[in-house]
Amino acid sequence: MINVTIEQHLQKFECIERSTNGTINIDPLQRGGILTDEARAALMEWGDGYSVCDFCPGVLDKIKTPPIYDFVHKVLPEFLGVDQARVTNGARESKFAIMHSMAQEGDWIVLDQSAHYTSYVAAQRARLNVKAVPHSGSPDYRITPQGYADAIQEIIKETGKPPVLALVTYPDGNYGNLPDAKQIAAVCHEHEVPLILNGAYSIGRMPVNAKDLGADFIVGSGHKSMACSGPIGVLGVSEQYSSKVFEKSPSHKVKEIELLGCTARGATIMTMLASFPKVFERTQHWDREVDSARWFSSQLESLGLIQMGDRPHNHDLMFFEAPVLYEMSQTAKDGRYFLYKELKARKIHGIKAGLTKFFKLSTFGLPREDLTVVVDALDEIIHS
Amino acid sequence: MINVTIEQHLQKFECIERSTNGTINIDPLQRGGILTDEARAALMEWGDGYSVCDFCPGVLDKIKTPPIYDFVHKVLPEFLGVDQARVTNGARESKFAIMHSMAQEGDWIVLDQSAHYTSYVAAQRARLNVKAVPHSGSPDYRITPQGYADAIQEIIKETGKPPVLALVTYPDGNYGNLPDAKQIAAVCHEHEVPLILNGAYSIGRMPVNAKDLGADFIVGSGHKSMACSGPIGVLGVSEQYSSKVFEKSPSHKVKEIELLGCTARGATIMTMLASFPKVFERTQHWDREVDSARWFSSQLESLGLIQMGDRPHNHDLMFFEAPVLYEMSQTAKDGRYFLYKELKARKIHGIKAGLTKFFKLSTFGLPREDLTVVVDALDEIIHS
Repeated sequence: MINVTIEQHLQKFECIERSTNGTINIDPLQRGGILTDEARAALMEWGDGYSVCDFCPGVLDKIKTPPIYDFVHKVLPEFLGVDQARVTNGARESKFAIMHSMAQEGDWIVLDQSAHYTSYVAAQRARLNVKAVPHSGSPDYRITPQGYADAIQEIIKETGKPPVLALVTYPDGNYGNLPDAKQIAAVCHEHEVPLILNGAYSIGRMPVNAKDLGADFIVGSGHKSMACSGPIGVLGVSEQYSSKVFEKSPSHKVKEIELLGCTARGATIMTMLASFPKVFERTQHWDREVDSARWFSSQLESLGLIQMGDRPHNHDLMFFEAPVLYEMSQTAKDGRYFLYKELKARKIHGIKAGLTKFFKLSTFGLPREDLTVVVDALDEIIHS
Repeated sequence: MINVTIEQHLQKFECIERSTNGTINIDPLQRGGILTDEARAALMEWGDGYSVCDFCPGVLDKIKTPPIYDFVHKVLPEFLGVDQARVTNGARESKFAIMHSMAQEGDWIVLDQSAHYTSYVAAQRARLNVKAVPHSGSPDYRITPQGYADAIQEIIKETGKPPVLALVTYPDGNYGNLPDAKQIAAVCHEHEVPLILNGAYSIGRMPVNAKDLGADFIVGSGHKSMACSGPIGVLGVSEQYSSKVFEKSPSHKVKEIELLGCTARGATIMTMLASFPKVFERTQHWDREVDSARWFSSQLESLGLIQMGDRPHNHDLMFFEAPVLYEMSQTAKDGRYFLYKELKARKIHGIKAGLTKFFKLSTFGLPREDLTVVVDALDEIIHS
């Protein structure tokens, strides 16, 4: 009986093709995680299960063959601007590790209203109370330092003490806004509230330095922005909090409790190492990406779309309001799916099926030719 | 300054070769995680960061393109013998998710003394108190149902109530012993203690069915035993506890708190799907693996080594005492490293460098020819 249920599904698992290969993919989730050729080679070399553990001295970040130790302890702290760094299973896992180690059940944390859902869910998993700093709403969706000051004050008023942590999303995953993290850190530190900077959409795309910004913790995503095969993330901590976040097991002396010993224990870490030289290089040319995003935004605005969030924009992730496309969807044969289908027919993927009025996209790493294909496609769809 | 520190390391990251490729690798950690050809192809097709998320309806296990939904909700529950299943970032992450959702800080859990270190560290991360069921010591290292009964009774005596959870390691990672899980489950259930079965070294190697054994939870490791690129694991839960372990976020209705929304969100899950047909198939021929392990054990015993743990042995993971090799190390030129170097010269890897007196190894998936190479190598080393 069991075998019948299993066996009827088996044939579909072995050779599955990725139907979006060969498209121009403008999904913000996808742009920064496209592998370099070096990462692709690393996947072939190190794909097997626990391949990186052949010469393990007891814990992942201390492995010298391959040179994970040098990456985690020499390169990553400099790259992130922190005292101590580790790899994790992703940005969300980094955030939970910080929250869970720094806070006790029932403590308070301040998040920005634009925070990724995983920041909220990590706080819920750590059983914390959340106060959100509201954004300014349409069209700017701005998060301000004053908002953090107000939220901290409210918590002090309600509970008699400041929150144990604050988090700022830099940039957020909807509008690609880069809030004034430096000023937000200053506000938090006035109340001795340590600040987490969620750089899932910045680390690996643009230069980000926790010390320069004043952040006590920084988290990044390998699969989102560091050209890695996922799931993998990074976690940076200032000296002040590192013994707390990286507390060792009382029974197994080299194992760090919050990391459950080891985290990205497989090919994922090898793709991070392999891609890193090119990822580091691309962060040095971030100005080109911003230029590219602004050019693309101006082209779409000339077609009647409106870019929300920071203007001029400072990031490749952008949110558009498209009344012209929404209006077309009202009478289109495929209704609200018409835009998705029209783009699909032109080998463009990444705007969620069913969206026409509001959607986000990213221009990261796309050459001008490909962006022109997208602009021309929208032009054609709108003016056909 | 910063760039100098980073740049001096960059060249070492791009093209790193795995020096153990081409060896016969008898490390128990490595045997079950060797990719199938299908998984290798899946890595190439799906390597990019968030590749599996192109058609995400909001949560990983509900993705229908590629067919993750069918795998997680139709195949995996049958394969594990549970009501509900999920993929996670690994067996340790599965264990922590169970412990953290089922228990409150300060609660008690019973583990076997042979439990993997991650079971202890997961309990520590969940801030639980641990009572260990002692094994019988050398040479059998047996864990008994009576040990669980005693540990539960002790906790009741000390705290007035039974532990919130118990865990049995099936098999353990040192001796490859398969305890009487069915009887252990019966003992736990007499006291209404739900049981976790840690199948990191069994699921994907041999048939294991949580319902048949009476386990309430089951966890497995993709990179250890399911021919997956890591990190990835599986988690199975009986209906009775599934709403607790898979509780949804109050703010983000489709996201499961303990999974932080999504877990193996990348190529790792695609290697699990791709390998699954062959993994399922190999579990049907487990008897051949046991025969192979017993043959290998008898060969090593004829060379003067002593196999510890269950006799006759029921698993490919075996622990040997080797007084003859230890004695040789006392006068060998390379001291306690002589065995490692002698084996390395013969392209055999997997016995930890520096060990001679006691070591573990695995025969899983190795053809008789390769096992013969290992036996002959040890024969030659001992009799040279």
